[in-house]
Amino acid sequence: MKKLINSLINTNWYSEPVSRVERCKKMGQNGVTLWFTGLSGAGKSTLAFSLDHRLLEAGKKSYVLDGDLLRDGLNSNLGFSAADREENIRRVGEVSLLAADAGLIVLSCFISPFRKDRRRVRELHQRNGIPFVEVYMDTSLELCEKRDSKQLYYRARRGEIDDFTGISSPYEVPENPEIIVRSTQSPVEAAEIVYAYLQKKGLVE
Amino acid sequence: MKKLINSLINTNWYSEPVSRVERCKKMGQNGVTLWFTGLSGAGKSTLAFSLDHRLLEAGKKSYVLDGDLLRDGLNSNLGFSAADREENIRRVGEVSLLAADAGLIVLSCFISPFRKDRRRVRELHQRNGIPFVEVYMDTSLELCEKRDSKQLYYRARRGEIDDFTGISSPYEVPENPEIIVRSTQSPVEAAEIVYAYLQKKGLVE
Repeated sequence: MKKLINSLINTNWYSEPVSRVERCKKMGQNGVTLWFTGLSGAGKSTLAFSLDHRLLEAGKKSYVLDGDLLRDGLNSNLGFSAADREENIRRVGEVSLLAADAGLIVLSCFISPFRKDRRRVRELHQRNGIPFVEVYMDTSLELCEKRDSKQLYYRARRGEIDDFTGISSPYEVPENPEIIVRSTQSPVEAAEIVYAYLQKKGLVE
Repeated sequence: MKKLINSLINTNWYSEPVSRVERCKKMGQNGVTLWFTGLSGAGKSTLAFSLDHRLLEAGKKSYVLDGDLLRDGLNSNLGFSAADREENIRRVGEVSLLAADAGLIVLSCFISPFRKDRRRVRELHQRNGIPFVEVYMDTSLELCEKRDSKQLYYRARRGEIDDFTGISSPYEVPENPEIIVRSTQSPVEAAEIVYAYLQKKGLVE
């Protein structure tokens, strides 16, 4: 009898991991990448943090990927040259895809100033059937520079940082972002707007 | 009244994402990286797939990272030189860490033949307070070569693949893996052993 059970058990193996559909059903949510783009100081991470808490309260599973976190780890061997910036966004796009494929609501916060790079990440998600939502933080350079919580604008103006987005390197405004957040909106208001968008699109229940 | 509510709401913002402790409590599990190492054909992915299904059945959230998946995406710009192999494992170590930090049970399947590279990934997890469990798939070269499901050994023997682990490049057996899986164990039996280990260590309920 034990042998029979064992032989039955032994046939019960898998040649694939759990499918995305099955995984998402179990998690009660769809994996999705929310891509927050905007100038340094535009409020990307602050909004993502508020949304992360809001989603947790609703029993959802989310995760924030941000520039500082990734520059310390995965992208610690990249600088700020044109090629390195492109590779930076390529890698974080791939990591966002993996995390969303795992069923998470991924909150990716990267200045990502170039349309070409953002379009590539969007196309990567489309090819893999993962929803991609571009959230443009429409905060003026003036306001970002006034906030300057990391003193980066100050240093960039003094010429201590090369190719600083908004000062010595361009920021290309998104042409068709799914969501635009204005600086007049508080992080919590903005989080509600994004949350409502996810609900409307059936990405969270 | 509306103004008052708004002003109260507006103060409710966050300067940090959800903490790991809070996140894991909500998910009913601890993020952990299970690192499956062994020769090509040793059964790493097959075991991980079985475990992924086993965990899903138990209501847990897991995700499989494997070499083929990552080589197509994040690591598509890496080859098989010594430096590229090292960078390959460095990156997948960082991605494993992020996914485990997000609360997932990460099933990372990489030949990862060198002790030095595996030790680095372990230390990265230790520094960040994330459990790391090394699972050595102790399957003989003879058996792996007999299986040869991807015809890689055949091609390596003909000299068509350089630096192939086990043939023309060494595999360094783990010195102190947390778990050793023998080829006499079926994937399902092995999955139960790993699952029991996670329970014993309090990593799953």
